[in-house]
Amino acid sequence: MIRITLVNPNTAREMTEAIGRGARAVAASGTVVTAVGPAMGPASVESHYDAALAVPGVLAEIAAAPDADGFVIACFGDPGLDAAREVASGPVVGIAEAAMHTATLLGRGFSIVTTLARTIGRTEELAHRYGFAAACRGVHACDVPVLELDSPSARAAVLDRCAAALATDRSDVLVLGCAGMTELTGAISAKLGVPVVDGVAAATKLVESLVALGLRTSTHGEYAPPPPKPQAGLLAEFTRSFE
Amino acid sequence: MIRITLVNPNTAREMTEAIGRGARAVAASGTVVTAVGPAMGPASVESHYDAALAVPGVLAEIAAAPDADGFVIACFGDPGLDAAREVASGPVVGIAEAAMHTATLLGRGFSIVTTLARTIGRTEELAHRYGFAAACRGVHACDVPVLELDSPSARAAVLDRCAAALATDRSDVLVLGCAGMTELTGAISAKLGVPVVDGVAAATKLVESLVALGLRTSTHGEYAPPPPKPQAGLLAEFTRSFE
Amino acid sequence: MIRITLVNPNTAREMTEAIGRGARAVAASGTVVTAVGPAMGPASVESHYDAALAVPGVLAEIAAAPDADGFVIACFGDPGLDAAREVASGPVVGIAEAAMHTATLLGRGFSIVTTLARTIGRTEELAHRYGFAAACRGVHACDVPVLELDSPSARAAVLDRCAAALATDRSDVLVLGCAGMTELTGAISAKLGVPVVDGVAAATKLVESLVALGLRTSTHGEYAPPPPKPQAGLLAEFTRSFE
Amino acid sequence: MIRITLVNPNTAREMTEAIGRGARAVAASGTVVTAVGPAMGPASVESHYDAALAVPGVLAEIAAAPDADGFVIACFGDPGLDAAREVASGPVVGIAEAAMHTATLLGRGFSIVTTLARTIGRTEELAHRYGFAAACRGVHACDVPVLELDSPSARAAVLDRCAAALATDRSDVLVLGCAGMTELTGAISAKLGVPVVDGVAAATKLVESLVALGLRTSTHGEYAPPPPKPQAGLLAEFTRSFE
Amino acid sequence: MIRITLVNPNTAREMTEAIGRGARAVAASGTVVTAVGPAMGPASVESHYDAALAVPGVLAEIAAAPDADGFVIACFGDPGLDAAREVASGPVVGIAEAAMHTATLLGRGFSIVTTLARTIGRTEELAHRYGFAAACRGVHACDVPVLELDSPSARAAVLDRCAAALATDRSDVLVLGCAGMTELTGAISAKLGVPVVDGVAAATKLVESLVALGLRTSTHGEYAPPPPKPQAGLLAEFTRSFE
Amino acid sequence: MIRITLVNPNTAREMTEAIGRGARAVAASGTVVTAVGPAMGPASVESHYDAALAVPGVLAEIAAAPDADGFVIACFGDPGLDAAREVASGPVVGIAEAAMHTATLLGRGFSIVTTLARTIGRTEELAHRYGFAAACRGVHACDVPVLELDSPSARAAVLDRCAAALATDRSDVLVLGCAGMTELTGAISAKLGVPVVDGVAAATKLVESLVALGLRTSTHGEYAPPPPKPQAGLLAEFTRSFE
Repeated sequence: MIRITLVNPNTAREMTEAIGRGARAVAASGTVVTAVGPAMGPASVESHYDAALAVPGVLAEIAAAPDADGFVIACFGDPGLDAAREVASGPVVGIAEAAMHTATLLGRGFSIVTTLARTIGRTEELAHRYGFAAACRGVHACDVPVLELDSPSARAAVLDRCAAALATDRSDVLVLGCAGMTELTGAISAKLGVPVVDGVAAATKLVESLVALGLRTSTHGEYAPPPPKPQAGLLAEFTRSFE
Repeated sequence: MIRITLVNPNTAREMTEAIGRGARAVAASGTVVTAVGPAMGPASVESHYDAALAVPGVLAEIAAAPDADGFVIACFGDPGLDAAREVASGPVVGIAEAAMHTATLLGRGFSIVTTLARTIGRTEELAHRYGFAAACRGVHACDVPVLELDSPSARAAVLDRCAAALATDRSDVLVLGCAGMTELTGAISAKLGVPVVDGVAAATKLVESLVALGLRTSTHGEYAPPPPKPQAGLLAEFTRSFE
Repeated sequence: MIRITLVNPNTAREMTEAIGRGARAVAASGTVVTAVGPAMGPASVESHYDAALAVPGVLAEIAAAPDADGFVIACFGDPGLDAAREVASGPVVGIAEAAMHTATLLGRGFSIVTTLARTIGRTEELAHRYGFAAACRGVHACDVPVLELDSPSARAAVLDRCAAALATDRSDVLVLGCAGMTELTGAISAKLGVPVVDGVAAATKLVESLVALGLRTSTHGEYAPPPPKPQAGLLAEFTRSFE
Repeated sequence: MIRITLVNPNTAREMTEAIGRGARAVAASGTVVTAVGPAMGPASVESHYDAALAVPGVLAEIAAAPDADGFVIACFGDPGLDAAREVASGPVVGIAEAAMHTATLLGRGFSIVTTLARTIGRTEELAHRYGFAAACRGVHACDVPVLELDSPSARAAVLDRCAAALATDRSDVLVLGCAGMTELTGAISAKLGVPVVDGVAAATKLVESLVALGLRTSTHGEYAPPPPKPQAGLLAEFTRSFE
Repeated sequence: MIRITLVNPNTAREMTEAIGRGARAVAASGTVVTAVGPAMGPASVESHYDAALAVPGVLAEIAAAPDADGFVIACFGDPGLDAAREVASGPVVGIAEAAMHTATLLGRGFSIVTTLARTIGRTEELAHRYGFAAACRGVHACDVPVLELDSPSARAAVLDRCAAALATDRSDVLVLGCAGMTELTGAISAKLGVPVVDGVAAATKLVESLVALGLRTSTHGEYAPPPPKPQAGLLAEFTRSFE
Repeated sequence: MIRITLVNPNTAREMTEAIGRGARAVAASGTVVTAVGPAMGPASVESHYDAALAVPGVLAEIAAAPDADGFVIACFGDPGLDAAREVASGPVVGIAEAAMHTATLLGRGFSIVTTLARTIGRTEELAHRYGFAAACRGVHACDVPVLELDSPSARAAVLDRCAAALATDRSDVLVLGCAGMTELTGAISAKLGVPVVDGVAAATKLVESLVALGLRTSTHGEYAPPPPKPQAGLLAEFTRSFE
């Protein structure tokens, strides 16, 4: 049995549930998926400010699941990924990371369609960091806020942007750049005739695979457990010792 | 049920069997693994010449398994990967590709230990192509031919090279650069205390994941089925039409 | 008059004071320097975990200085830089960023000497992000914790590492990779005969220059004020509206 | 006297002859040009599948010309170049490689116009591998199959695409991305007023130059003669020993 | 007191004066700015030929100011920067260099608007050399010669090009790519609502900062004073010995 | 008949003659080689200062040979190459450029052995500009001044450095990084068993090839003839009009 905890870095409960459904839909039969959201931090992540304030909650949720075999950070900016790797009880994968890795196995280049234009910079930075600066042909915004992705007009906007991106970027593959888009994957793929990668599903399979392979984050250098240290004030509860 | 065919590009039957064992050890319960080797081509792949002559056999094996859900090319040079993607009935992953993707999820940088020094150039080229030029900190040869990896002295040479690579490259993770090293993974990881990635196992899980996600190579552009065309002479049997 | 607030992301008061001294030593006569440290977060920043937990405090200090003309984030990992740029009342510069920019004006390549080896990955990542992957010839650790840099033996270790880095990397310039090394700058430069860049001093001058030029972070796209949003739980006090 | 063998990797005899004419038109007086085509493999190269199956024929032709001083592989994907370098009796140059090198001597950036859109990915990959990712400003398809380049309408399509590429890419130089376009070079250059590089002619001069300089592929490492090895089945005739 | 000498590499006296005004407008109270132009070389720099012939004059002006604490080369191609660094009595900064460094502190990406299209290649080359290949989103020409930037229609052309660049490139920041555009900075920023960086002002502050920090070009390797050597003929007066 | 003018950018007459000999040794029978050196500028080029002052002389020599079909700039820093391309009557190739292009046709990676360590920065910069940042595995200095390369001890130093570079860099090919090393090529290749590329010979063949191909620098954009313009003072004689 493999236990995977998906952490939704925002406090929107419905999104947490949708993330759990998305993960369970692709998990192997022996895998138990738990989707959690933090008690602290932003209602959705749409800025660097939001992302920064989402990270303590992500770390708290990871600490609260010491028996999990692996973790997914279910926000397309992959907030807190490095810190999570230092302290988690198993491998950790971000959904942007997972989606990009997966997309490169399916074609020469991919396009990403995301929510607000202001998140494009972060997404491009992640593409560079993960090694996909050349494979990522473009990042496009549909200008729909994260928590309004559910309406029919929002779905139409995402689909339109996907079609336009495909034409402009000469891409083979589409990546949906927000955990809130999980449930649009099938429809867009059917409509446009290209593989469409959802980060939540992709990350779930990658973590499941790492656990099956007996692999977890290296403790040999950068990601060894952090030196113990007092955390002051509001964050005092984060004073922990990691072995 | 997911059916994965692993193609060993060389004609060494024992290696084909070992590859099958390596894949089965990590496959999910519902996954059926078949390991095959071609009837044509080189006894092992240790040069560009060998790799070039291994490709027709790889393509023949893929054509011979039209019911497979996904494929692994089980040689660290990933020979024939692009061509295979055009014609296969499901997603195709190379073991070098799989190992490098997997290694980057476990630390900042990885080192590769391979067989003969003459293969280093190809490995570095693949690291660049896949986007891991920065993550791949070094490629090192242990100077043992592919078909002699089984002896105790060969195993000691591989282990020594791994230890040295770790120290020189400031890496977090090791990658074994030959399908013939599959069975050394556990011992090296236990000895050196870092994650050790075997490409055969990693590729098996990646293909299994892609199939579970309902994803396969895009047919939207470069990897659409090739235009039908006569293949002459010795290779006449490769005249096929792909839909 | 130009008012610059330097934020020390850790809670070590003596370091805050040393940072203030370092900045004042180079500020122009009309510049007023204020060095502050947060009431929350880690005693020093030596891991991704520490860095993540330091960011809320940095953002709180920036919010607490709405009259400042510009800001410095005085920790070599530049924690919270993107978020700070969205919300600050003036330009924000990180000390790693400032040191690297400054070093490239003085020679072809620079070496960085930092505290613990586990921080090297983050430093290399910043060098890439800022455009200095080629100019940064090496990052070296002296294996002294941040809060122990004051002892004579620590100073000797830093100096030794600097001399070794210069020889190994064929660099023209040295960069000190920790705000706690500010006071060693002069001695090392005198000893080794090369320019030595301290990030605190460099950042102070860069921010002062930006203010004098009438420049601040663009609000045209990514760094526009964040959309207003509730922040829950422990972090509720970060619920703010930015115009 | 310098003997150069040009290998057309496809079985289209007329194209082989045109390639020979193109090479002879630029060869020095003391150079003897022989153009050959294989007895096996695809009628034209328009997919990765075709390219893979063209390689054995290329290697057979090279083995059949042990007295040649140098070789050109006359297909814009440079199929089999690495393997050819290991086994040829003299230097080997691909026409994509030659065209790109030559183009960079004539201006800051070049555009490539090729046949089918599905070959663009391979061409971009070669530009990266050869070092010309920045110099290559764009790769454009005219959507004419290789064996139909002779018609007036095809020639018009190529010319139109060249004019458009020049305008879009802000390039100084054009490269024709198919050996079948050799005879259009002069007309396009006259019409558009920029240097137009044909790979067949460029490669002929590069190989001639290497031979005149007394240079051939290094046998010091990666490109040393391959270790002898049995090749099985259909490809048994490729079992050879190289000194 | 800090003495900065700005060298206008062309012989257009009015431009020298405007450069001086631009620098004085931002210099600190204790800084003395001197703007000089050479007695030899081109009337304006609009080609590689002009730039090459501007360099001896730049070097002569630097030699003529041995008491200056720092230098600015006030032409956007940064002509002679490396040579100037070898021989100057203090740090030297080019205005392209300064503008690009400054722009990256204000947003994710910047666009450059320059004079003639033929200078774009050099500008892109500098962006690469300085590390800003990714941050520099585009270089655009307004097709106004350097010495005609003063007319209202020229100013309108520059403004139009800036607006277009911002829209096309998804940039946060604008850089004006010619010393002759210094006096347009404020108007363009007011009109377009983004930070606009003028290289003359930016370089003045960077040099002032370096001097305040006690930093100058490393003499440790590449930029050590040049070996003494006779300079013949027309350039005999450049025979000097540097200590 | 092809007329090639080689310009030695320094005033050392013996070196000019050796360069002429080196070129003639490889030129085709119908090629007439003329080697010239300027009447102005440095006795040898060993610094950025020297290189800057060598350029006017290079441009003067090119203007003095309006009937030449092509040009070589015979100094490893390729001084004045861009300016020369704007004004020359035929294609222009630098010897660093030529050597690096040629070396990449002979193996995966090359090492450069040059004279003084202070020239390494420029050489690395050229490797980046020409696209060979990855292919160039290392640049090494033998610490022999340009005009002292003739002595037996100097030759021994060059050979030693070559042998060491080969071992350290895992290179296939050597490049000699100074026109003054032309006559050592054969001996080093014989001794070390790898291809050794001399830039003078390589550039001669490249220019000869370009002329034979009917190709010269594009006049379409950046390298169009420069706008006519007065050149003042000492350089007044460089006032020319180019059509």
